[in-house]
Amino acid sequence: MPETLPIESVGLVTPQTLHFDEPLALQSGKVLPQYDLTYETYGELNQDASNAILICHALSGNHHAAGYHSMEEKKPGWWDSCIGPGKPIDSARFFIVSLNNLGGCHGSTGPTSINTLTGETYGPDFPVVTVKDWVVSQVRLADKLGIQKWAAIIGGSLGGMQALQWSIDYPERLGHAAVIASTPKLSAQNIAFNEVARKAITSDPAFHEGRYFDHNTIPQKGLMLARMVGHITYLSDEAMGEKFGRDMRNKAFKFGYDVEFEVESYLNYQGERFSENFDANTYLLMTRALDYFDPAKEYNGLLESALKKALCKFLVISFSTDWRFSPERSEILVNELVKAGKDVCYTEIDTPHGHDAFLIPTPRYISVFNAYMDRVAKEVC
Amino acid sequence: MPETLPIESVGLVTPQTLHFDEPLALQSGKVLPQYDLTYETYGELNQDASNAILICHALSGNHHAAGYHSMEEKKPGWWDSCIGPGKPIDSARFFIVSLNNLGGCHGSTGPTSINTLTGETYGPDFPVVTVKDWVVSQVRLADKLGIQKWAAIIGGSLGGMQALQWSIDYPERLGHAAVIASTPKLSAQNIAFNEVARKAITSDPAFHEGRYFDHNTIPQKGLMLARMVGHITYLSDEAMGEKFGRDMRNKAFKFGYDVEFEVESYLNYQGERFSENFDANTYLLMTRALDYFDPAKEYNGLLESALKKALCKFLVISFSTDWRFSPERSEILVNELVKAGKDVCYTEIDTPHGHDAFLIPTPRYISVFNAYMDRVAKEVC
Repeated sequence: MPETLPIESVGLVTPQTLHFDEPLALQSGKVLPQYDLTYETYGELNQDASNAILICHALSGNHHAAGYHSMEEKKPGWWDSCIGPGKPIDSARFFIVSLNNLGGCHGSTGPTSINTLTGETYGPDFPVVTVKDWVVSQVRLADKLGIQKWAAIIGGSLGGMQALQWSIDYPERLGHAAVIASTPKLSAQNIAFNEVARKAITSDPAFHEGRYFDHNTIPQKGLMLARMVGHITYLSDEAMGEKFGRDMRNKAFKFGYDVEFEVESYLNYQGERFSENFDANTYLLMTRALDYFDPAKEYNGLLESALKKALCKFLVISFSTDWRFSPERSEILVNELVKAGKDVCYTEIDTPHGHDAFLIPTPRYISVFNAYMDRVAKEVC
Repeated sequence: MPETLPIESVGLVTPQTLHFDEPLALQSGKVLPQYDLTYETYGELNQDASNAILICHALSGNHHAAGYHSMEEKKPGWWDSCIGPGKPIDSARFFIVSLNNLGGCHGSTGPTSINTLTGETYGPDFPVVTVKDWVVSQVRLADKLGIQKWAAIIGGSLGGMQALQWSIDYPERLGHAAVIASTPKLSAQNIAFNEVARKAITSDPAFHEGRYFDHNTIPQKGLMLARMVGHITYLSDEAMGEKFGRDMRNKAFKFGYDVEFEVESYLNYQGERFSENFDANTYLLMTRALDYFDPAKEYNGLLESALKKALCKFLVISFSTDWRFSPERSEILVNELVKAGKDVCYTEIDTPHGHDAFLIPTPRYISVFNAYMDRVAKEVC
């Protein structure tokens, strides 16, 4: 808990919620009759509304990307390393909007919300939402906020996919797309890990086919396992080796199945903490959004054709030890952007931090990100 | 089911079981008062008992390494690609012994066996067994079979760890150690994956703290998840991509949480099949044997010092896309062997098959293995 907030922080922030009455036709064919979107903003919108930045979150993220909700909050928002005065996404220059995606569990309408048609919690009846659907919902949010064109749309991992989809589906409405630690589609291995996570949740007897609230329970063990598997894929072998190696929990082995190594203890702690704070149905939904994402699919599988639609400029950043979405995957995107004749800056950052590196202020990453965003600011401010 | 057995097969084989009355003091401090070891043999022991080869199995392996138990058996033993007449481990030249390790669930004494002291199934009371313990039990098996010195001890993955431990603990009793797709110790990431597998099993309500037989159930969901996670680590991203890519199960997406992609279907099938055929307590035990393995530990963490004890020659093979036990890990072993002044042949095989490559007859792998084993045969036959 900071006694005073750091000066490079956006400070105290209060989430807001907007209600949307117009039904949203989803990619699945289902329709969401109405919904709320919860979001935060940092900085001030300028007079011609040209300095707005949209932040898109990843699998377990939410609208709280920077600053503090109260003086008692121990940790700032999830991307505080990159958002704030003097940081790459500079709140002194930009008006920054960060929302909780539809289907989320932190304020926006999702499986934990009340279905106004039935008066009951949606639970498993909440429809599957895709990256394309999110983009449509974000367009409506932009409309309500009076933002005709985003200076940039920025995201890491699943967030980068949203930036990419925006550039293809609404080319006139963004100046730049920053696609960080991301990929134009999941690999079979990525889908396989997601399937293990889903199976862990759905096979937990406390899941009750998604209606766990009706049984006054949550599938905590399943969610914990899902997070443990996910967490391993966010870290590099190298980072885990440096952090834990084979460090033992006790002086001598106990020769049993309780925790023996520090890495086990860490992983159990991460899984437990997450399982207390995240909704299982939302986790299923987010992993499926990842699986389905494939913007080339509508263009006969040709990513180049999809990207030809884009009018914005691109920043693509990958991280050397990210084995979830490896630099090779970013390079595929970059190559197709080049073939499509787009303006793209690409850098691979050398770091031991694996996929999570997009959250960590490695100096070269911040320098590159700063330089690019300075260019964006000069265009619009 | 073969109507006639392939000529390059060891043919029909019948497992045998030997009983051991002498108590076995385990690394954990516990004592196993008596135990059985189930094994198979292929080929004939020569007059001076110099042509014997010991095969050590990996996590989910057993004694049935080659040939068929009956004409009805659909698939041969797990390493039939490398064991048989004309194959690298040539049954026309060698007397090959393959056992089910102590703690296993395919004949040798393990958690599914009756504890003769109580008359009840061991279950979770079966003591944790380590690679060192296995080697001691294998020494006793060698003694009973009249084998003073193995021509070679050979294993892949966890099997390679046993070959390595033999070379250090009983240097006079083997001529060669073949350490394939293995590592001198697990990394933090390896341990983390094992912990997820264990947690999947132990958090399944059907686990009943290991006493599932008493409840007429098995923790099938947990075992399935454990296998699914494991299976992903046995395959390479590349191999999964080639085999499945993003192939869909149906013509169009259903936008739900049932199987959508072929890779999900495959993984679920593998998990289910395994969960019907393997014991959960044994799975815990095998993963712990992997975690604990670290022969350098007794030598102040110096692998070179441990390896100086060895008198045998070494064959080390790694596979380019094995990310479970990567070529770098084999190279660490090779470098320490060289520093210790040992005779070592090393090759990295270029293959897309990941960790499972040690089971697949890639031509260059088989050539190298053949050439090395030909040298072994010429020394002893």
